[in-house]
Amino acid sequence: MPVHVLSYDTAHPGDTRHLEAALGRFAPESVRRLALLVKTEGNASVNDFSREYGMLSARQAITRFGGSNLAEGATMLFSTGCEGVISPFGYAFIDVDDGTTTPSGGEKGLVFGGACSRKVAAEEIGTLAHALLVADTVRQGMKDLAIGPDDVQLIIVKTPLLGESRADPAAARITSAFSKAVGALGAALALGEIAPEHVVPEAFDRDHSLFGRRAMVFSSSEGGNVEVLIFANRAGAASDWIIHTGGFSDLLDASGIRRTLEEAGCRLDADGTLADADTLGAAFIKAGIASNGRVRQYRTTIRTSDLDMDKHVRASMSGLAGSILGTCRMFISANTVHQAPEGAGLCAFIVRKAGA
Amino acid sequence: MPVHVLSYDTAHPGDTRHLEAALGRFAPESVRRLALLVKTEGNASVNDFSREYGMLSARQAITRFGGSNLAEGATMLFSTGCEGVISPFGYAFIDVDDGTTTPSGGEKGLVFGGACSRKVAAEEIGTLAHALLVADTVRQGMKDLAIGPDDVQLIIVKTPLLGESRADPAAARITSAFSKAVGALGAALALGEIAPEHVVPEAFDRDHSLFGRRAMVFSSSEGGNVEVLIFANRAGAASDWIIHTGGFSDLLDASGIRRTLEEAGCRLDADGTLADADTLGAAFIKAGIASNGRVRQYRTTIRTSDLDMDKHVRASMSGLAGSILGTCRMFISANTVHQAPEGAGLCAFIVRKAGA
Amino acid sequence: MPVHVLSYDTAHPGDTRHLEAALGRFAPESVRRLALLVKTEGNASVNDFSREYGMLSARQAITRFGGSNLAEGATMLFSTGCEGVISPFGYAFIDVDDGTTTPSGGEKGLVFGGACSRKVAAEEIGTLAHALLVADTVRQGMKDLAIGPDDVQLIIVKTPLLGESRADPAAARITSAFSKAVGALGAALALGEIAPEHVVPEAFDRDHSLFGRRAMVFSSSEGGNVEVLIFANRAGAASDWIIHTGGFSDLLDASGIRRTLEEAGCRLDADGTLADADTLGAAFIKAGIASNGRVRQYRTTIRTSDLDMDKHVRASMSGLAGSILGTCRMFISANTVHQAPEGAGLCAFIVRKAGA
Amino acid sequence: MPVHVLSYDTAHPGDTRHLEAALGRFAPESVRRLALLVKTEGNASVNDFSREYGMLSARQAITRFGGSNLAEGATMLFSTGCEGVISPFGYAFIDVDDGTTTPSGGEKGLVFGGACSRKVAAEEIGTLAHALLVADTVRQGMKDLAIGPDDVQLIIVKTPLLGESRADPAAARITSAFSKAVGALGAALALGEIAPEHVVPEAFDRDHSLFGRRAMVFSSSEGGNVEVLIFANRAGAASDWIIHTGGFSDLLDASGIRRTLEEAGCRLDADGTLADADTLGAAFIKAGIASNGRVRQYRTTIRTSDLDMDKHVRASMSGLAGSILGTCRMFISANTVHQAPEGAGLCAFIVRKAGA
Repeated sequence: MPVHVLSYDTAHPGDTRHLEAALGRFAPESVRRLALLVKTEGNASVNDFSREYGMLSARQAITRFGGSNLAEGATMLFSTGCEGVISPFGYAFIDVDDGTTTPSGGEKGLVFGGACSRKVAAEEIGTLAHALLVADTVRQGMKDLAIGPDDVQLIIVKTPLLGESRADPAAARITSAFSKAVGALGAALALGEIAPEHVVPEAFDRDHSLFGRRAMVFSSSEGGNVEVLIFANRAGAASDWIIHTGGFSDLLDASGIRRTLEEAGCRLDADGTLADADTLGAAFIKAGIASNGRVRQYRTTIRTSDLDMDKHVRASMSGLAGSILGTCRMFISANTVHQAPEGAGLCAFIVRKAGA
Repeated sequence: MPVHVLSYDTAHPGDTRHLEAALGRFAPESVRRLALLVKTEGNASVNDFSREYGMLSARQAITRFGGSNLAEGATMLFSTGCEGVISPFGYAFIDVDDGTTTPSGGEKGLVFGGACSRKVAAEEIGTLAHALLVADTVRQGMKDLAIGPDDVQLIIVKTPLLGESRADPAAARITSAFSKAVGALGAALALGEIAPEHVVPEAFDRDHSLFGRRAMVFSSSEGGNVEVLIFANRAGAASDWIIHTGGFSDLLDASGIRRTLEEAGCRLDADGTLADADTLGAAFIKAGIASNGRVRQYRTTIRTSDLDMDKHVRASMSGLAGSILGTCRMFISANTVHQAPEGAGLCAFIVRKAGA
Repeated sequence: MPVHVLSYDTAHPGDTRHLEAALGRFAPESVRRLALLVKTEGNASVNDFSREYGMLSARQAITRFGGSNLAEGATMLFSTGCEGVISPFGYAFIDVDDGTTTPSGGEKGLVFGGACSRKVAAEEIGTLAHALLVADTVRQGMKDLAIGPDDVQLIIVKTPLLGESRADPAAARITSAFSKAVGALGAALALGEIAPEHVVPEAFDRDHSLFGRRAMVFSSSEGGNVEVLIFANRAGAASDWIIHTGGFSDLLDASGIRRTLEEAGCRLDADGTLADADTLGAAFIKAGIASNGRVRQYRTTIRTSDLDMDKHVRASMSGLAGSILGTCRMFISANTVHQAPEGAGLCAFIVRKAGA
Repeated sequence: MPVHVLSYDTAHPGDTRHLEAALGRFAPESVRRLALLVKTEGNASVNDFSREYGMLSARQAITRFGGSNLAEGATMLFSTGCEGVISPFGYAFIDVDDGTTTPSGGEKGLVFGGACSRKVAAEEIGTLAHALLVADTVRQGMKDLAIGPDDVQLIIVKTPLLGESRADPAAARITSAFSKAVGALGAALALGEIAPEHVVPEAFDRDHSLFGRRAMVFSSSEGGNVEVLIFANRAGAASDWIIHTGGFSDLLDASGIRRTLEEAGCRLDADGTLADADTLGAAFIKAGIASNGRVRQYRTTIRTSDLDMDKHVRASMSGLAGSILGTCRMFISANTVHQAPEGAGLCAFIVRKAGA
């Protein structure tokens, strides 16, 4: 079983004790691929540097474990915001060479892989070139995994912001939401979910009838490049895990999440909660709110309060999803621009295959 | 049907248009009793005055509708905090003299009534005298309603803080949580849920094995008195409504909420959501978090972030409860000290009687 | 002496005790004109309603004092944000008919007057029509005071936002800063500080080489109209007070404030602080920060932190100005777009005339 | 000249480019002693980890420069909070062996040195043992510098909090303010400013008539030990710098700061601002607010707003001090419990000696 899905707690963003314990189960030289997907507990405001702190600490830990080559090759996507009942934690995805040979056919199983673009020039950010670069990066990642668009279940996309020049009013043009919009369209383009002729600047963050269904997009000012982490089910992959992606219609729609879990192979008990916690390897949820701030017909303050919209969304969804999953380890993030219909969201679950 | 349960939206805390429309359905002189229970959308910090603004505006609206006697006699409990999917709204409970005579026996139905203590002296706040005054106020309210402790399903208690002298370090002794603790013990004493010998200062906000099950307690610096709003089912009350109170074990426990709804007479569909939205008159939820900040075994940041604990709790619970109730009109508040076991919560629903 | 300049404290935004005491010194029927300029202590975020609460409370107090005509005719400009050492307080400007006849010439003295536009249509907000309406409102105010542009020392402008539809993404076009920019250009146009051909949409909030020197502009979502409060020195005005406006070059420039005080007729002691506190009737300061966030060559976090830019600015300026003025009663507000050169600010002082 | 006083900017908490450039001026093996005193720009809330990030980054930079021994021996005191016009920056104090021999007598000059206690046990924190440990650590630092209490001008004290167990309600006993109180009394004890019989638990954070005049105290949950950085003037120290400490009476008292600058040997121009910016090596300011929240007779919201008290204080003082010093590089921090009279503060300046 070469693909391992682990989760580990952090006592604070710089804490890597449990990450190191998780890595320590493997021989460093056997690790072919490593990806971390982490929720950090900073306050998610503009001057929150907990993500950078977490990444620096994790990179040091990986270097200590497996050397700087492994650390540099690892995909590390850190997302701030543990509001509500989200526990600060990380998923570690580890592809280990355990001598298993991968047959060219057979049952599908989870594979994952990262890809990274060149640095996006400041003047490119937010333009069509940026979207096309995202698409290229996704294509590169699929090629490395020897998969096609149909195999892909989920892509986590990190898309750049205008970093250090953030005090520059010109940078105001590229909000975090705008960069996410561009990233989402790029990913949907690569997956064939949106036709190239629709990926035009006029549509960016505007035409909300355009959306993919399999990308969750984050923005970040560090790095300056596009980074993707692709999860797919590949025929013959020697993996105990499978991934399945679905959606929900709004912030109250628990049934969308339940349906996706069942489609992934999970069993729910009569109460609508996950029957066997051990079957769940990872839970990814991306939730949003309609631009009028309403949920069904009700006015909310999600877009009109001192609290950032995304914090309302993450906290609210954490209660709903946590009550179904029975855990606080959930990778929940907010803003679904071009990633789902307006106000809707998407969810993906990595689940242990029956009998595995 | 003398007891009416209405809900109304507010476009901002000073907005009373929908309240006035709701009141306008009745002849002013027929209104015997009026209570408002409102969620206001300020940011719930120390210098948030949205509650006072909302109360001043509502009092003016009631005065315009029915004169100052009605306004002064009305029970008005406003609670700030609409995080997550909680819609800013109000419940209006109106007892109307429609010529119905109340038989001395027969089927139970919803009654409600308020009571108000004298002003609590600054030096009394947080002491045993404060707790006993809460108990007396509850007893007065029960007497006015001609009910006993067993009839009571829910008491909303407003308990005072050391108001204007809040910059006084001596006032630091009486936190909002401490005043709630005292209020909860007083209410539980009046209901016979806690024996008098256990209501001692050493236990206040400390002995979390002491708790009632039918009070939700708020603190407020305005007024300086104790105010209670009692909801009960009384034999022979000519009411289409019934109230039922239950509990849940933690912030992920959706089944406690579902069970309480079912016990109240609601039907849930296969998906675990309320089948008929019209049966629900009002939803009250009080949720908390254990003192170690954990939910089940998972660390959360609910007690260790820049965001006030209560905001995490309200937002998280709004997602869970909203997904069951199918509405954003929910009176959710946080902190369950002495109102439920540590980390647990209580919920109450006013439900239309079958056939009503 | 018909023009009175008073200041009064507030224990909270709804507190009008000291306002009522101040008004109580005059016979209600003798009050010709009344203006309040108030700093309220809410947290100045989007869901802070302390200003509306303060205005409702003050309007009620004025009505009790002098009837609804006086209340409706009063100019009431409330500004949130008492960061740093700014005390929550109000200035009351009262023009009283005390039988004094105003000679047509003679020494100049303080006069003040308000003017109010029609409601600005939602589609006009942020356009040239909006700017021209501000200019017209200023001209109307000057006409009512029988003064010309050269007599004007200071105009406080309240300019509307896209209020209740604030959740509408289209409203994002009109930020508070943008509305202030439009208001500032309109006022400068009326005062002849900027030529009409420069007041073009392309310049709004962009061409920072355009600025007036005598307007302080606020935005507000309530009301929906433009409101101005004009302070001028008019020949023959029977007033003990005079007003003088100056400027300062950046957030560290104490000398600009000192110079303006001296030009207004104040004496500073050797230490650079105001020698006689009683000479100061009112202090108005509007401060800003360059778009690169720097003060002199130093990077600040004023534009790049979780704390709103304006809060940094008000708090910082409160320390500087308070140390010179020796008081915490200062009307300090932030954002000087088109009201001063980039990063600079303006200040105005109402000072008791020598011998008065 | 063995003692160097440098300042360096940071583009973000993890940025060490300018620190590395500053260090690069010296031969690593010649550095005898190194101390960093840094303002980081996080939001200074409970879940702000910018300080830890900054320290980790700086430690790596020092290791790259001079090896792990130098890094481990360096004193690193990082303080979060750059509100107002405080620039995020660091002071580096470097003692270099440049072959100069230190005569046993002669003119006084700046020396500095750090000392570190053992880990304070959780049950000791906030007790007398904690205060005595602070005193011992200060004495150790003085001994290492071969100085007596009278030579000391300034001690920066870092005092521990109950770190990871912060969700434990028992930890609520030891607030940041309480730990600072204990640290301040310990330092004052070592300097002979407070007699041992007054350093009793009953006085901790209560008896505000007890205070030293030469310590600035911070609290921090990391490390768990007491750490001090001592600045003194020692006879014969071959240093171009001198340090002088003074005080001010409240948040408006600019003259206290000016007087201290002049006593330190600086010249002020007629406007009250520092005449020659190059003479100032470092500026340390610790400011506070009286427990009633008033400045002079005026009510402020410093203790009664959503914004933490310390943020109001730092921002307000930054405007006042920056206007005198003409720079945004100022080490300003808040809370003067037992470090100055209630509401007052202390300031210290490192100044280039005349002719140096």
